[in-house]
Amino acid sequence: MTDYSAPTRDMSFVIRELLDFDSIAALPGFEEVDGDVVEAILEEAGKFSGEVLGPLNRSGDLEGAVWENKSVRAAKGFAEAYQQFVEGGWNGVAASPEYGGMGLPEVVATATQEMWQASNMSYSLCPMLTQGAVEALSHHGSEELKAIYLEKMVTGEWTGAMDLTEPQAGSDLSAVRTKAVPQGDGTYRLFGQKIFITWGDHDMADNIIHLVLARTPDAPEGVKGISLFLVPKFLVNEDGSLGARNDMHCASIEHKLGIHASPTCTMVFGDEDGAIGYLVGEEGKGLANMFTMMNEARHKVGVQGLAIAERAYQQAVAYAKERVQGRAVGQQGAERLSIIHHPDVRRMLMGMKAQIEAMRALCYVAGAAMDVARRHADEGQRRAAQARVDLLIPVVKGWCTELGVEIASTGIQVHGGMGFVEETGAAQHLRDARITPIYEGTNGIQANDLVGRKLLRDGGSAMNALLEEMDAVISELQGAETDALREALTTGVAALRRASDFILSKGGEDPLQAVANSFNYLMLSGYVIGGWLMARAALKAEQALADGAGDEAFYRAKLATARFYATQILPKADGYAAAVVAGADPVMALDIEQF
Amino acid sequence: MTDYSAPTRDMSFVIRELLDFDSIAALPGFEEVDGDVVEAILEEAGKFSGEVLGPLNRSGDLEGAVWENKSVRAAKGFAEAYQQFVEGGWNGVAASPEYGGMGLPEVVATATQEMWQASNMSYSLCPMLTQGAVEALSHHGSEELKAIYLEKMVTGEWTGAMDLTEPQAGSDLSAVRTKAVPQGDGTYRLFGQKIFITWGDHDMADNIIHLVLARTPDAPEGVKGISLFLVPKFLVNEDGSLGARNDMHCASIEHKLGIHASPTCTMVFGDEDGAIGYLVGEEGKGLANMFTMMNEARHKVGVQGLAIAERAYQQAVAYAKERVQGRAVGQQGAERLSIIHHPDVRRMLMGMKAQIEAMRALCYVAGAAMDVARRHADEGQRRAAQARVDLLIPVVKGWCTELGVEIASTGIQVHGGMGFVEETGAAQHLRDARITPIYEGTNGIQANDLVGRKLLRDGGSAMNALLEEMDAVISELQGAETDALREALTTGVAALRRASDFILSKGGEDPLQAVANSFNYLMLSGYVIGGWLMARAALKAEQALADGAGDEAFYRAKLATARFYATQILPKADGYAAAVVAGADPVMALDIEQF
Repeated sequence: MTDYSAPTRDMSFVIRELLDFDSIAALPGFEEVDGDVVEAILEEAGKFSGEVLGPLNRSGDLEGAVWENKSVRAAKGFAEAYQQFVEGGWNGVAASPEYGGMGLPEVVATATQEMWQASNMSYSLCPMLTQGAVEALSHHGSEELKAIYLEKMVTGEWTGAMDLTEPQAGSDLSAVRTKAVPQGDGTYRLFGQKIFITWGDHDMADNIIHLVLARTPDAPEGVKGISLFLVPKFLVNEDGSLGARNDMHCASIEHKLGIHASPTCTMVFGDEDGAIGYLVGEEGKGLANMFTMMNEARHKVGVQGLAIAERAYQQAVAYAKERVQGRAVGQQGAERLSIIHHPDVRRMLMGMKAQIEAMRALCYVAGAAMDVARRHADEGQRRAAQARVDLLIPVVKGWCTELGVEIASTGIQVHGGMGFVEETGAAQHLRDARITPIYEGTNGIQANDLVGRKLLRDGGSAMNALLEEMDAVISELQGAETDALREALTTGVAALRRASDFILSKGGEDPLQAVANSFNYLMLSGYVIGGWLMARAALKAEQALADGAGDEAFYRAKLATARFYATQILPKADGYAAAVVAGADPVMALDIEQF
Repeated sequence: MTDYSAPTRDMSFVIRELLDFDSIAALPGFEEVDGDVVEAILEEAGKFSGEVLGPLNRSGDLEGAVWENKSVRAAKGFAEAYQQFVEGGWNGVAASPEYGGMGLPEVVATATQEMWQASNMSYSLCPMLTQGAVEALSHHGSEELKAIYLEKMVTGEWTGAMDLTEPQAGSDLSAVRTKAVPQGDGTYRLFGQKIFITWGDHDMADNIIHLVLARTPDAPEGVKGISLFLVPKFLVNEDGSLGARNDMHCASIEHKLGIHASPTCTMVFGDEDGAIGYLVGEEGKGLANMFTMMNEARHKVGVQGLAIAERAYQQAVAYAKERVQGRAVGQQGAERLSIIHHPDVRRMLMGMKAQIEAMRALCYVAGAAMDVARRHADEGQRRAAQARVDLLIPVVKGWCTELGVEIASTGIQVHGGMGFVEETGAAQHLRDARITPIYEGTNGIQANDLVGRKLLRDGGSAMNALLEEMDAVISELQGAETDALREALTTGVAALRRASDFILSKGGEDPLQAVANSFNYLMLSGYVIGGWLMARAALKAEQALADGAGDEAFYRAKLATARFYATQILPKADGYAAAVVAGADPVMALDIEQF
């Protein structure tokens, strides 16, 4: 296993050169933020991820989280690392200083998120879930609840968990059955069972604050009967100290393909007289209130796809430089070479690197758009940025996690036989990555969200705005260096337009025409958006080289990965477009009995 | 976990309808083979795989092979299943009756191979390796060695193992260091260590016959100094009874991502006075002699890709039919449905099914070509068939194993969160499948073999012969039912021609132009060959429907999967062709330090 070393130069390139960072730093609330702050954060977070979290990744996988006596013990070293994480203030990079956060832009938090997830995905799910709970609570919680819980969750003194899924209610949360019975004193008592609760129990923090979807006794069927409750593991006294243990416990944890050190809990509420809970937001608005934090959560899962790909890439590069095997093409008598000299290994590494750069650009661009959507002084700008965020999120989540799995698998392949041996560590990345296309809404759900809520609902206007920006970038690609990019991006944009037009013209009347190939549309969008961002990166690199900005090898590499993306990756777009415009009939042609 | 049920109807369709089976049955030596024999074999092998091997797949994964006291104990039930396998005669389906084999065509053995691998890949690696050893021994062993060992290996009373790899000699076997010292009595004593030896030790059979690559003391450096030796675990007395334990043992087994029940052994030879071995073939011809069985071995690994995909598909279909979640598109109030009703799930299952059918056709067509190459009375026919086999093998191995991994991963996705839980069994298929693109020559090596030995060496003549057959099939696709196929196959064939021409025109002078994108060329070949075979299947299905052959739903389904393949799968070909014709520069653009 290799160490993780945060790619701070690449991260800084995206934040400070590819993006219009000045406009982010100029947003209200970011008065203290400048390039130096960004560099300092990247460096410190890089150190923490490389020195503290990274070394626990493999041991955590081997040991796993341990369930005993109805509770969970985190893998060795995790609790100590968590304390350091909290003390360093890393739990609240983008959170409001009012509650103890650093108040930095989301785009900077995206970079730190990448580092946590790359260095130790199992570990980093815990603060990630806490942030989700913070988001929901700060938007919908009463002032009273916020006063008691929010600061301790922002700092990470207490962690958060999201209790949504039940055995019969996975992707379809309208089927939730957990009961919440009002006690007449403003509190409720909860009874029921939740499954797949990430870090639902552990010994890393003094309290765990669960946000639980449940039904009040007279609630209507379906989504409108679902409310959101805050249910703490330990009740909290008026002075903020911890009181009695609440009536809830972890009944078991799952034996999973990957993320072994992240306990996936079955939580039981109300085995005795009911778990005491507090309503968050209005009754019946539970699902809607959860959905407000969905963009952030999906964005973070997309970043996991990027992160695990980066980790797999670093490990593959290290192995390829070290492992000696065979000779150069056509050189029978020559010295044996490290395998990075072999063209097919080079092809794999280039593919990993180019796609990682495209994913990183996408994840960070989406993060920056969140900053504008939240903070811009002008409402029109906020609204436009929000439309961009809404459009990009399913692509961030879906495309980056599909690629994360693919790249982790390529990482194994670079290792040859050693990649299949667990000791090497390459296989862990594939096992860990494999959950990302599933949780936080399967990629099929992301795809339906993209064609339904994001494309059809606004008649294609957000997508058209994006396509027009792509046209503008194409017209900037003038030099010989970017020939291949111009050609490939032109073809890619045409394909995305063709597919968008098909869905817009057919999908309104017949939703099946939109959803049957929505996954192909999502992948198409990802590859083309990636191409647009690689082209922007190439233009910035060209400019830097023309300006004599130094760091020539770095900028030349950006041109090289952009060209590789254009010749080897972006041409995949056409195949996905073909599938979309073929319509729903080929997909739905068989009767169920014919499978 | 679901049961495995051999898809005998689909298998029979390929063997008896898609292929020209009459011409196989007419080959010398197959006088007893007819359609009824094929059906009987498929049925019986189907029963054995479903009832005996399938149920041990999950328990074998959980328990794994166990190493203790320098030897290996197979997982529970494996030894008993192996005895039944041997008693049923299943070890030698295609082997010569002279040595106790069934003497059936390779194309029929391919179908049984699919069943063994689908029902229990870990188990089936043992007879698969034995067959490899039988192959090498029957081609290159002395009559004396054959008389002693061959029959017991054909029947499976003794198993075989192939000992090639050493820590410093993985893909590059020229670096082998194991020593073989001649004793003056015709025997040798071996000293050295071999790694990654599949089923190198176990307790399922009385003896294990290792074929070991080693160097004699005065041998030259490189490949020409390597010889092949037969090294039995127990020495064999003249009367055929077992003698002393040979000086060799299993020093450890690997902890792997998958195929847990298949022990991957480190074998140590000559810890004391040397392991006694017998030369197979001439000194210095060891590698060449191993390569004679390479086509068969690579074919079987390709079949593993197909097999694991079929197993994953069956499990995904069963889950999708049973799991209730959500409602029909646009039907908020309706009954909740099993997820097979959801278009995106349907898309996944169609993709699995269509690609499995294409892979199966490819694997079986290659098997049938082996039969013709081995047995046809006419030398020209044999030679043409051998050229076809040589061309197809890297595609069978490479493309089918890439798809096997992808489809096993899709199988997990169909299960949603449950797919990530090991108990479900879906994750095992991905873990098992992941070795197939690596062993028996990584897919990068397959790809280089395809562009080098198979395309460039004969100036494209075998590929052109295949492309011309594809043209002929295109001209047969006349009906409206096959519109989409005609269009997609025309585009696909043009892409394969374009890429082939590029490699033929540039790759001779500059091998880098051929090898840098050889993997893309391999995938392109696979998708287009798959399209050609799906078109042939569609034509047969059309004919059967026109003839009123009955089984209408079955033949309609063949037309439907062929159409899906045309609209959703085959369009991927173009992207791979684009990568090939972009040449080597984008792949090799970075210096090693830039990674």
